[in-house]
Amino acid sequence: MRISELARAASTPVTAVKYYQREGLLPPGEKSAPNQTAYDDRHVERVRLVRALLETGGLSVAVTKQVLAVLDAEAAPLAEVFAVAQYAMTTPRSPESEATPEARARIEERVSAAGWCATSDNPGLETAARALDGLRTIGFDAPDDYLDAYVSAAASAARADVAALQDRDGRTAMAELMVIGTVLGDPLFAGLRRLAQQDATHDLFPVSTTDEAGA
Amino acid sequence: MRISELARAASTPVTAVKYYQREGLLPPGEKSAPNQTAYDDRHVERVRLVRALLETGGLSVAVTKQVLAVLDAEAAPLAEVFAVAQYAMTTPRSPESEATPEARARIEERVSAAGWCATSDNPGLETAARALDGLRTIGFDAPDDYLDAYVSAAASAARADVAALQDRDGRTAMAELMVIGTVLGDPLFAGLRRLAQQDATHDLFPVSTTDEAGA
Repeated sequence: MRISELARAASTPVTAVKYYQREGLLPPGEKSAPNQTAYDDRHVERVRLVRALLETGGLSVAVTKQVLAVLDAEAAPLAEVFAVAQYAMTTPRSPESEATPEARARIEERVSAAGWCATSDNPGLETAARALDGLRTIGFDAPDDYLDAYVSAAASAARADVAALQDRDGRTAMAELMVIGTVLGDPLFAGLRRLAQQDATHDLFPVSTTDEAGA
Repeated sequence: MRISELARAASTPVTAVKYYQREGLLPPGEKSAPNQTAYDDRHVERVRLVRALLETGGLSVAVTKQVLAVLDAEAAPLAEVFAVAQYAMTTPRSPESEATPEARARIEERVSAAGWCATSDNPGLETAARALDGLRTIGFDAPDDYLDAYVSAAASAARADVAALQDRDGRTAMAELMVIGTVLGDPLFAGLRRLAQQDATHDLFPVSTTDEAGA
């Protein structure tokens, strides 16, 4: 198919497809004539994936490239694909603001209390610890019951993530869901938490019906 | 105190403090001499807060400004502070990629099955629905048990969020935790989910001990 057909098949604007090409996110098509390039179903799949990573996942072009490289390394065991993808997707925003050792120790303590088997190089440890440090800057020392509520919430979500992987047909489909599910589980949870907060604050901070309708 | 003392008290580099000032994120200090400006404890608190929002929360300067404006509007009822802060913090990345009506309906269906009281203008609905659309681009139609695991995870986290608010001393401290807790609950959960995934995949995709130590 031509580039216009590729774009239509992937429900993506042609300008976006050309952009992915220019950034090296799309393998080249086959030259079928001096001025014509042919694309196939693998390209359609890849355009959809790149779009999901960039637009819905909010990844940068550089991180998207890393994730695609791991996905394409057929020899890598799936656990490694998962680890590398997680790492690529969790690179700290500013390397100079590392979590304090206290915050890391606190997360490790709750994780170990929950009986999880996780290594200290898991990038999630740094992410969670930096969040704790951020909460401390406003004088909020997250108590055990607060942290443990998040720990058990994370455990339920992760169990659902892994269960979903087992239903996927083949290695590529599984690896794809690992990557996309890890990226998109975050906004899925974030959105649902905001809905749940509205429910939970309804009693604590009542507003008038008019306010609510217009908010 | 002088700007160097303000920076030290807030454990923030002087260059960052100057940047916050230039961007209008910090109220001006008091001119104590032609070449000298004095800052107080409120500035220290604000520098810490701005840093947490920008660096740990990952908000843009524009969104940080909106959040600070709501926090500073003393007359606003707390439920409104919460709603506006949530909205400011959940603005879609690219306005042209809206969630499909099907995905919104699906989220509303699961939320209503959970018995939550949430309005359709809650920005979390759009965020969660776009994540569902993203999952569909790789052919993953999230089944009920997957979504409900996320719904109940979000409910536990939101209950912990609201319970923590009730222990805060005074309106400013409460509003601060609403904002910072909403922002930082996301990376806290995201980090913990990656740790939980490692635990959950350990059995499904075993790796050798050497791989694990070096990963």
